Amino acid sequence: MTDLTLVTYDWVPEPPRGHVRDIRVRWALEEAGLPYRVQSVPFHDRGAEHFAHQPFGQVPWLVDGDLSIFESGAILLYLAERSDALMPADPRGRSQVLEWTFAALNSFEMASVPWTILQFSGDTEMTPSRKQLEDFLKMRVQQMETVLAGREWLAGPFSVADILMSDVLRIVERLGGVTDEHPAARAYIARATDRPAFKKAHADQMAHFAAADRAA
Amino acid sequence: MTDLTLVTYDWVPEPPRGHVRDIRVRWALEEAGLPYRVQSVPFHDRGAEHFAHQPFGQVPWLVDGDLSIFESGAILLYLAERSDALMPADPRGRSQVLEWTFAALNSFEMASVPWTILQFSGDTEMTPSRKQLEDFLKMRVQQMETVLAGREWLAGPFSVADILMSDVLRIVERLGGVTDEHPAARAYIARATDRPAFKKAHADQMAHFAAADRAA
Repeated sequence: MTDLTLVTYDWVPEPPRGHVRDIRVRWALEEAGLPYRVQSVPFHDRGAEHFAHQPFGQVPWLVDGDLSIFESGAILLYLAERSDALMPADPRGRSQVLEWTFAALNSFEMASVPWTILQFSGDTEMTPSRKQLEDFLKMRVQQMETVLAGREWLAGPFSVADILMSDVLRIVERLGGVTDEHPAARAYIARATDRPAFKKAHADQMAHFAAADRAA
Repeated sequence: MTDLTLVTYDWVPEPPRGHVRDIRVRWALEEAGLPYRVQSVPFHDRGAEHFAHQPFGQVPWLVDGDLSIFESGAILLYLAERSDALMPADPRGRSQVLEWTFAALNSFEMASVPWTILQFSGDTEMTPSRKQLEDFLKMRVQQMETVLAGREWLAGPFSVADILMSDVLRIVERLGGVTDEHPAARAYIARATDRPAFKKAHADQMAHFAAADRAA
């Protein structure tokens, strides 16, 4: 594996900075110590070339030689096959990373993304569906609080599953959905974001978009 | 790999029958020709034992000897490592299955599940957030229509990615979100659900819950 290229937007508005999903890939690459470069594609005017790499018109994707792969969850498992720092090698450790990787995205983020949309919608009325979506997230946060009260990381040692779970939890914390009632979840987010690889990834993403501001 | 056991509820109400997520695992096991047995856990009164296997109190999980794994996406990739009928062996084929597996769950189902909640909520008012969630799904259906217009299956030969994508698409079709305006998506769903392994999995799930009715 040589010549890894992470592709992300050339620019995004202020609010999502620090949360654009390329941070998950940057973080994993930093944890694994794998060298990579970053390439930009236009945030505005996403063309056929963009959709050929990412059929939903989003970022990131990763280019590894003649192979191009999208979906941050898929990219992280792809990289995890190449580094013990991202996934243990034994069958039990591997299956635990696999289940918690999907849990982060399909059980937790599936509840947090619609809730985030509600938060930014400007809706003031508590409709039945809004109540259901809020209760869905609250239940998931409480379930993760229970899980995290009993362990340092999700699958034994730190793994890509923790990159994903802590990344989806920290946006919910920022928007007020993880509170002092969830001390284990808060401690877990703090533990994850205190890692040097996260700090580097976060600073690099902020610098990437700040550079675009200066160039404009 | 011997003695595979798929764990699902002993009973569910009528509406979700045919769509309980154990069908994804049944389908994969049938495609691969792997023998398995089905074990039931109570739908009501989910206890500590249930949460020890599935921390969100859901189903399915799969037991393989002394290993227990949850999340249908994780189970399907776990099984895919064991059968060429579920994932090609070459690096490009593997990475395509990986990205489309996550796309089915984290790009498509993330839009369809909140929309499904809206459909069943009884809400009559079109609030801004409801409009956003509906538009989110419509965009994803159109993006998948474009993708599916150009290919028979998502990652070359039929794979676990198709099990997941067709399973999330068919519930949206059933609820009116995939229509005659999406001929490629409709043909894809028809192609997938016409496979003998799907038919067997579907019939077995229906029979499993019907047997619980008779026992009650």
